[in-house]
Amino acid sequence: MSIFRFAAGFRSAAGRCGLKASGNPDLSLLVADSVCTGAGVFTTSLVKAAPVLYDQAVLAEHASEIRAIIANAGCANACTGAQGDAAAREMARLAAEAVGCEPHQVLVLSTGVIGHQLNVEKVAKGVAAIAPELSVEHAPALAEAIMTTDTRPKTSSATAVIDGVEVTVAGVAKGAGMIHPMMATMLSIVTTDAAIDADLAQSLLREVTDASFNCVTVDGDPSTNDTLLLLASGVSGVTINASNIAAFRQALEIVCIDLAKQIAADGEGATKLITITVDHAPSIAAARTVARKIACSPLVKTAIHGGDPNWGRILAAAGVAGVPFDPSHVELWLGEVQLVAGGTPTNYNEREAASQISGQQVAIRLNLGAGAATGYAWTCDFSAEYVRINADYRT
Amino acid sequence: MSIFRFAAGFRSAAGRCGLKASGNPDLSLLVADSVCTGAGVFTTSLVKAAPVLYDQAVLAEHASEIRAIIANAGCANACTGAQGDAAAREMARLAAEAVGCEPHQVLVLSTGVIGHQLNVEKVAKGVAAIAPELSVEHAPALAEAIMTTDTRPKTSSATAVIDGVEVTVAGVAKGAGMIHPMMATMLSIVTTDAAIDADLAQSLLREVTDASFNCVTVDGDPSTNDTLLLLASGVSGVTINASNIAAFRQALEIVCIDLAKQIAADGEGATKLITITVDHAPSIAAARTVARKIACSPLVKTAIHGGDPNWGRILAAAGVAGVPFDPSHVELWLGEVQLVAGGTPTNYNEREAASQISGQQVAIRLNLGAGAATGYAWTCDFSAEYVRINADYRT
Repeated sequence: MSIFRFAAGFRSAAGRCGLKASGNPDLSLLVADSVCTGAGVFTTSLVKAAPVLYDQAVLAEHASEIRAIIANAGCANACTGAQGDAAAREMARLAAEAVGCEPHQVLVLSTGVIGHQLNVEKVAKGVAAIAPELSVEHAPALAEAIMTTDTRPKTSSATAVIDGVEVTVAGVAKGAGMIHPMMATMLSIVTTDAAIDADLAQSLLREVTDASFNCVTVDGDPSTNDTLLLLASGVSGVTINASNIAAFRQALEIVCIDLAKQIAADGEGATKLITITVDHAPSIAAARTVARKIACSPLVKTAIHGGDPNWGRILAAAGVAGVPFDPSHVELWLGEVQLVAGGTPTNYNEREAASQISGQQVAIRLNLGAGAATGYAWTCDFSAEYVRINADYRT
Repeated sequence: MSIFRFAAGFRSAAGRCGLKASGNPDLSLLVADSVCTGAGVFTTSLVKAAPVLYDQAVLAEHASEIRAIIANAGCANACTGAQGDAAAREMARLAAEAVGCEPHQVLVLSTGVIGHQLNVEKVAKGVAAIAPELSVEHAPALAEAIMTTDTRPKTSSATAVIDGVEVTVAGVAKGAGMIHPMMATMLSIVTTDAAIDADLAQSLLREVTDASFNCVTVDGDPSTNDTLLLLASGVSGVTINASNIAAFRQALEIVCIDLAKQIAADGEGATKLITITVDHAPSIAAARTVARKIACSPLVKTAIHGGDPNWGRILAAAGVAGVPFDPSHVELWLGEVQLVAGGTPTNYNEREAASQISGQQVAIRLNLGAGAATGYAWTCDFSAEYVRINADYRT
């Protein structure tokens, strides 16, 4: 595997500023060499962290003038009121000063403990220390500096030949659960060297999110800080438009799905990546709804953790997803083994069924017999370690 | 505490017929001395067990002619196709024969493993053995014979003076999770010696369910078999009508809420009963939606298990419930300690906050600052023991 790089036109830097009690890297900058286009998808929670509200305001007015992203881990800057809003603005101002641009050209990401005020003095010192280090070589360091309880950094890139030119999409993500104590979860930054209009970037990012990050669940709890940002530098000389968007969309989707699956596989306490496919559904949205409902079921996730092919739990979860189907038309596969046909159990071999969930990758496929659409969800198994991580932090 | 009895006009019997591998009691009969009114509320899952479909058909046509309920544990008779439907009908026929009534006067309840065919020969022998034992004294035995992984039987009764006469409402319930392996969960039978029109009974039962059983969650997974039945014998001589329904409704609600809380407290692996109160909400339905969303959060439930007052998780869960409120108006209490005012943390004492969740009863109160309505949810904490129960059954 080659070393991860962002798309052409971006440099980054990362370091320690003391926000993480562990002393691990917790501050990073991503800087575009010149003005680029930004788009963002944010948590749907009513309880939004200060940097989420700040970024939404920036993108509403200045999506075509973005120059940088500043990101910290160790403090979510959520439920922090007016003081938190001021801290997010101050982070943007510090980055703008270091980069030589306006604060409204900077986006802000925070992740970590909810309900603690952000120490902006630490951030100021940190920015001063890392800004001189900006380089294309520090992309892996940025992926590490946004981690919280993630056990490994998450990076992905893909290329597409568009109008005869190779265009790159390259991104990073973090997220493992809502985490000890009161951590706030998913962040992702995706870059490209294509040029793309801000409105088109925004609508494309939203669509691709529905097919990728929105299909992941670790514990069913969206956080206050969930953010996905796309920055497009245009350095490749290729401009995305209606006639060439399909190839770009595919590359973006490959990167986002890859990052989404990495998040699921690295869920708190996880030992297995579970892919749930729901097909023959009335619509893609319906298929995804059923897949996510199954992916959110603690009963399904504990059974798979224990190596028990408890298919009744999968059907029970599907039945309450709010999507209409006829249970007597349902087929269910675990890996290569068909467990259910016409809504009732096949004569499957119990040991063979159990062997389908013994590895690190588990595939569940549910045929609803109610249409032609397919959707996916990715999750992890549910272990006693998850409970330990989330229960025993302070005791 | 006095020994539990159903309302006047009902006798019961319970015993073993070999459906439970443990050899514990698994078959029971509840018989009305003469024809009574029945009402039922059933699982909202599309995947409905055979007895659920059977009971819905009976109540649609014969709600005023009910004579008996036959219930088994150890086999859910769910995902069993046409053979399962025939087995449910056969259970009703066996009970009708023993009681001396028509099969369409009998309601059927099943709970246990999903996807296994019911052994009706065992049921036939069991009915023959227990039918001669029908007695008012065997009500506690019925509560025990419907248990699956419940650790204790659940009974409750209340009285109301209506039109100068004391009327009794008395019921039993079971349910602890969706249980090993593929058990199907909540059953409840409530009896009364009042007389009540079938349509009025049905609408009242549905309303009271929304305020009681529908506010309980152990793991957020509704089962294929969830059933609540109300039988009204009329033996008290009191008929419920528009002018006296308030007192009857209150007694019914007391019994249903009491049973619902017993189910939550006996959730799989539970060590604590958690009561979530959401007030100043735009409507009762909205308050209950937010309360249930908090009650379903594994992050909230693991934190409380670990004695960690992680209030950020409570606000994060409330924020994604789909109910509009302004986060900056929110107040949050844990027991007697106010943690959040105006959406930001108070200067609470960390140790004092932790002490509010150290006992067997935990109270969370969230003031949404968005109206005048109040709603409740009841759940239990989430322990490593839950994962063990649900993961390690076959390994």
